[in-house]
This record gives sequence, structure tokens and C-alpha cells, in this order.
Amino acid sequence: MNMKGRMALILVCCLMAAAPAFAKTVKWNLAMTWNSTLTPLATPPVKLAKLVSDMTGGQFVIRVEGAEKHKAPLEILDMTKGGQYEMGHTASYYWKGKDATTAIFTTVPFGMNMAEQEAWLFYGGGMELMQKCYDKFGVYAFPGGNTGVQMGGWFRKEIKSVDDLKGLKMRIPSVAGEVFAKLGVNVTNIAPGELYTSLDRGTIDALEWVGPGMDIKMGFHKIAPYYYAGWHEPASDMQFLINKKAFDSLPPEFQAILKTAIQAVSADMFYDNFAQSAEAWSKMKTEFPNIKVMTFPEPVLQAMKKATDEVLNDYAAKDPLFKEVLESQKAFMAKGREWTKMSELYYLQQSEKVNK
Amino acid sequence: MNMKGRMALILVCCLMAAAPAFAKTVKWNLAMTWNSTLTPLATPPVKLAKLVSDMTGGQFVIRVEGAEKHKAPLEILDMTKGGQYEMGHTASYYWKGKDATTAIFTTVPFGMNMAEQEAWLFYGGGMELMQKCYDKFGVYAFPGGNTGVQMGGWFRKEIKSVDDLKGLKMRIPSVAGEVFAKLGVNVTNIAPGELYTSLDRGTIDALEWVGPGMDIKMGFHKIAPYYYAGWHEPASDMQFLINKKAFDSLPPEFQAILKTAIQAVSADMFYDNFAQSAEAWSKMKTEFPNIKVMTFPEPVLQAMKKATDEVLNDYAAKDPLFKEVLESQKAFMAKGREWTKMSELYYLQQSEKVNK
Repeated sequence: MNMKGRMALILVCCLMAAAPAFAKTVKWNLAMTWNSTLTPLATPPVKLAKLVSDMTGGQFVIRVEGAEKHKAPLEILDMTKGGQYEMGHTASYYWKGKDATTAIFTTVPFGMNMAEQEAWLFYGGGMELMQKCYDKFGVYAFPGGNTGVQMGGWFRKEIKSVDDLKGLKMRIPSVAGEVFAKLGVNVTNIAPGELYTSLDRGTIDALEWVGPGMDIKMGFHKIAPYYYAGWHEPASDMQFLINKKAFDSLPPEFQAILKTAIQAVSADMFYDNFAQSAEAWSKMKTEFPNIKVMTFPEPVLQAMKKATDEVLNDYAAKDPLFKEVLESQKAFMAKGREWTKMSELYYLQQSEKVNK
Repeated sequence: MNMKGRMALILVCCLMAAAPAFAKTVKWNLAMTWNSTLTPLATPPVKLAKLVSDMTGGQFVIRVEGAEKHKAPLEILDMTKGGQYEMGHTASYYWKGKDATTAIFTTVPFGMNMAEQEAWLFYGGGMELMQKCYDKFGVYAFPGGNTGVQMGGWFRKEIKSVDDLKGLKMRIPSVAGEVFAKLGVNVTNIAPGELYTSLDRGTIDALEWVGPGMDIKMGFHKIAPYYYAGWHEPASDMQFLINKKAFDSLPPEFQAILKTAIQAVSADMFYDNFAQSAEAWSKMKTEFPNIKVMTFPEPVLQAMKKATDEVLNDYAAKDPLFKEVLESQKAFMAKGREWTKMSELYYLQQSEKVNK
């Protein structure tokens, strides 16, 4: 073999040796419930894709697709299960119609706050229960960003009593929707991208969305200026869903990279949403003086609480896994809330007095 | 060249081609302020090391060393700066003696809660200011886990008035220590590993540590049964420090892996600590009935607040960067707290009423 031949052989076998690296390259698609512009809900998947690419030197690529493209915002679970998309970013309670238990992994009316809920998920058996619920769908489920306490929604008129709720057409999903239905509200769920139009056309009279950071950009206040404090979504968790076969076929390094990035971007969304809400809230009084910030009267809240317990207990009576999850949450919350009262609540109350 | 020769050549150049992968293997050392048993504070570095190894298939190895080994818990900054350890895990306020500004990246008495502080760090310019402060030490600084609201500490006797603080020997670090010093306390800082012995021997009469999850394991209640609610560390951030040269010499993938893992394990510590505190708190009444849970009287809190403002303003008058950071925090907190009151505080208060 001459020199040229040797050089060629070296080149060939160097390429061969390099091949496994290229063979590892993975390209995934991720579908979101949200339109791409719906930040900060739509932010974790975009950040995830960037981090995963950076951590693998571009060997693991995730293409993020917003609902404006796939047009199926409330079919993320099916599309991930079926493998059309390896991943989804959504909220678990959108699958209540398929399986009631999914609903209470997002949040529960009068339930845990963010610290309590994440502690329950990661250190109170919540993750294991969530996976037990999602095993039947052939997907892995991970917390995908928490909003903290959400606002109670936008109404055209003041709610002075439970009677004022009767006959109201409102977009409010999941358990809270059933609670309002019990109190006489005509409840509907509408995909995030169609909320403003529905309110504008009178398809609905009221809606809840997230909080000031996201709501004010949507323009709801122009039509429904009564903005109520929260009761129904004290700590809504978004969710990453991953097709099990796709995840299991990843090299272990990529599995670890994906899971770590999910946890990083999920924590990040909470900070991001808080910052946007704080900013929007501070501007609201001067820039949108027509917004009327309200709290529901205590008898209305009492009625909501009673209806919440009924809805949850009804599901628990019918579904053993729902019962198991609910009881796990209640037991954790009982302990967690006592500590929250001694730490966060006491501190905030005391600060109010001292900062006067 | 015969067949054997060709095979040998293929083998050699395959090894050459594979070499860059091995050349990339990085071994780092990380020193903690904490003893290895001091979970959950000591947990983020251990989890970080595991994640980084998993994500790189063992190519990036971080050896975590507790204070029981290196014996220099309060010299982490110097050891990271000097490169003896590529990384450290500590709390920023331990460097107040070197640079006052470092103190207020951990927490501030009567300052921001966790949500407000993390939002300020990641979305309010806090990270940039922290790096501006740490540039002079040749290290990168990252948030490394938040404790949430810490308890106000353990006292041998009840604090009924500001007079009861006078002459008290207490371990309480940073700004809160200076506040107590102004109120007549003999303040000292003691490394975490020596706290119980110091209290037991009467070197100190009182101390603050973290919260029930960590405190009860330390046994302080056996000596000082008055356990006071928090005012001075509403959201203490631990901190990862990284030697700049070491970080800059990492391949970009490893840099991204390290930063992402830091964010993941930091969020995780908050959940972990919350869960442990909730558990410990719920057991306290039955297992340790001698513990007397107390709140400082309002006049004492008012005196602490006044002294806090004096201490902070004194530093701000002397140090332009301290002033810049303090003003940035105050401006963010003013907005953030209004949103916290409408969301978290209102929700917790309302839940108390409804759950009665």
C-alpha cells in the first residue's frame, strides 16, 4: 500500500470511528398546548430545546411546535402517546375527560400552594402517583413549570352572591369548572388561542386564565373589567409528557440530560411568571385604571369550598387511584400547611405590620 | 501492507479518533461549607455530581468534599478563587467581612421571600449584579438552593422586650447579626459543625440555624427550648462558586451541563427542605413537647426593622455597589410584594377562613 492508500485508509477508519457520535444524533418533535407567543407558558419547551442542544453539542435536537401550527392544543396527550410527537408540553387537567385523576396533578381548588405541591411531587410520593396514572397512556409525565397562585378570572359584572353566578357562561377548566357548574354556571373549556374572541363575541361572559403577567396581554380587561382574586388554582403545574418508547430508546446520557433540563426550565418558569406578574400588577393601576380588583365574598367562597369537596369526594368514591392521590395530597397538605403558616404566612403578615 | 498490517493500522487510527472523547474527561473537586451529613444543605452538590456524571457518561466527574474533611468551612471562597477546588457550595453572606455586598445576595432581614428573590435574581437583574460583585474574586456565582423562610432561632429564655436581648451571646451571621449587635447582643459566627457544642458549653446562649427540618436533628431544643418565628432570613440562597479559569476551560457542552444541573438541584433543595421542615414541624408537638414556639413581640420586631434599615443604609453610604444592589432589590421587592399580597398571602389567608 502506497502513501496515498494509507492516507485514504486512515481517513476512512477515522470516519468509521467518528460514526457512533453521529449515529447518536436524535431529532425530536415537541407539541405545545400553547401558541408559541403565549409566554411564559410556552417558554419552558423553547428553553428546554436550547439547553438540550447546548448540552449535547447539537446531537439532541428538539423542534418545538406551537398550537398555531399543529392546531390540536387539547390533543397533546394522544399525539404524544401515538408517537406523532415524542414530547408534549401541556397541563395535566386537560385530560380529565379521559381520566379524572389527571386533573388533580395540575392543581386543586383550595389546595396546595407551590412549595407544598412541588414538595409533595418530589418528596411526598406525588411523582410516583402521577406516573402510575400516566402509565396507561404509554407516556412519562414530569412537572413542567408552576404558575403559583392564579387569579380567579375576569367577569363582566360584580359577583355579590352565589345567585350572581347562576346562568353565567364561563370558561373555567377541570375541577373548578365542575364546582362552578354546581353553583349554576354554564361551564365550557376553550383552547387558549380562542379565549379573547369567545369573550368578545359573547360566547362566554367570564373566564379565568392565569394571572396579570399573561392576562393583561390577552386584553380581557377591555371586555370584562372585574378581576377576581384566586381560589381555584393555587399552584398550577404545567407538564412535560414524553412517549415512553422514545424516551427508553435514548442513550442514558440523553435521558439524564432531558430530565435535568426539564427540572431546570420548570423552576425557571415559576420565577419568570412571578416577575411578569409583579411587573404587570404594578402597572395595572396606572395603565388600566378601569380594572376593578375584587375578592369573592366569603359566602361565595364557602359555597365554592363545599362544592369542591363534593366534586372531589364523588370522583374518589368512583375511582380508587383518584382516591389514593387525593388522600396523599390531603395528608401532605395538612402537614405542609402548618409549616407554611409558621413560615411564609407568618412572615408576610409580620412584614406588613413592620413595613407600615 | 498485508492484512495484519492493515488491521493494526485500523486499530491505531480508531484509537486516535476515539482519543478526543477521553481527552475531554474532566475531574473536579468541590468543597462545601457544610459537613456531608448536613442535609438538605449538603444535598445539592451531591446531586449535582451525580447528574453531571450521568449526563456525560462519566466524562465529567465532580468529587464532593464536606467540611469534616477539608476543615475550612468558612474559606470556600478563597479555596475556589485559588483553584484548590474548582467549585464550592456555601452561602454568600459568609464573605461579608471581605466584601459587604456579598451579604445581601443570600437574604436580607425583612426582605424578599423565595419567589420574589429568585424572580429578582433571574428576571430582575440580580444575577448580573451578583456576578459584578464576584468578578473581583475570579469566580462565577450561581444560586445554589433556597431555604425559604428560616426560623428566628433558639433561645434559653423568653424574649419579652428589647431589653431581654441585651448581653445575650448569640450565633447569628451577616446583616442580622449586626442588627442584633445594635440591640445589645454579643454576636458571633460559628461554623455549622460546631453549633451544638458551643450552645452546650455556654459559649453562646442562643443561635439561629435554618428551620425545623434541619434544626431538630441538631438537638438545639434540648438546651434552648424557645423557638422563635423568622424575620431575618426570609429566603436564604445557598450558592455555587466556580473558579472562572476552570469553568472557561470546559468544553461548551460541559459548561451548559454544569449550569443546567446547578439550576435543577437548586430548585430541588427548596422542595426537599420544605418537605423535611413540614415533616419535622408536624412531629414536633408530640415528640418534643418541651419546645416553645414563639413570635417576637411587635416592639422587638419594630426595633429589629429600624436597626436593619440603619445597617443597610450605612453600608450603602460607603459602598456604591452595595447601594446599587440594595436599590435594585428594594425596587423589585416593592413590585413583587404587591403581587405576593394579592396572590400567595391573600390565598393563604382566605384558605384559613374557608378551611375552618
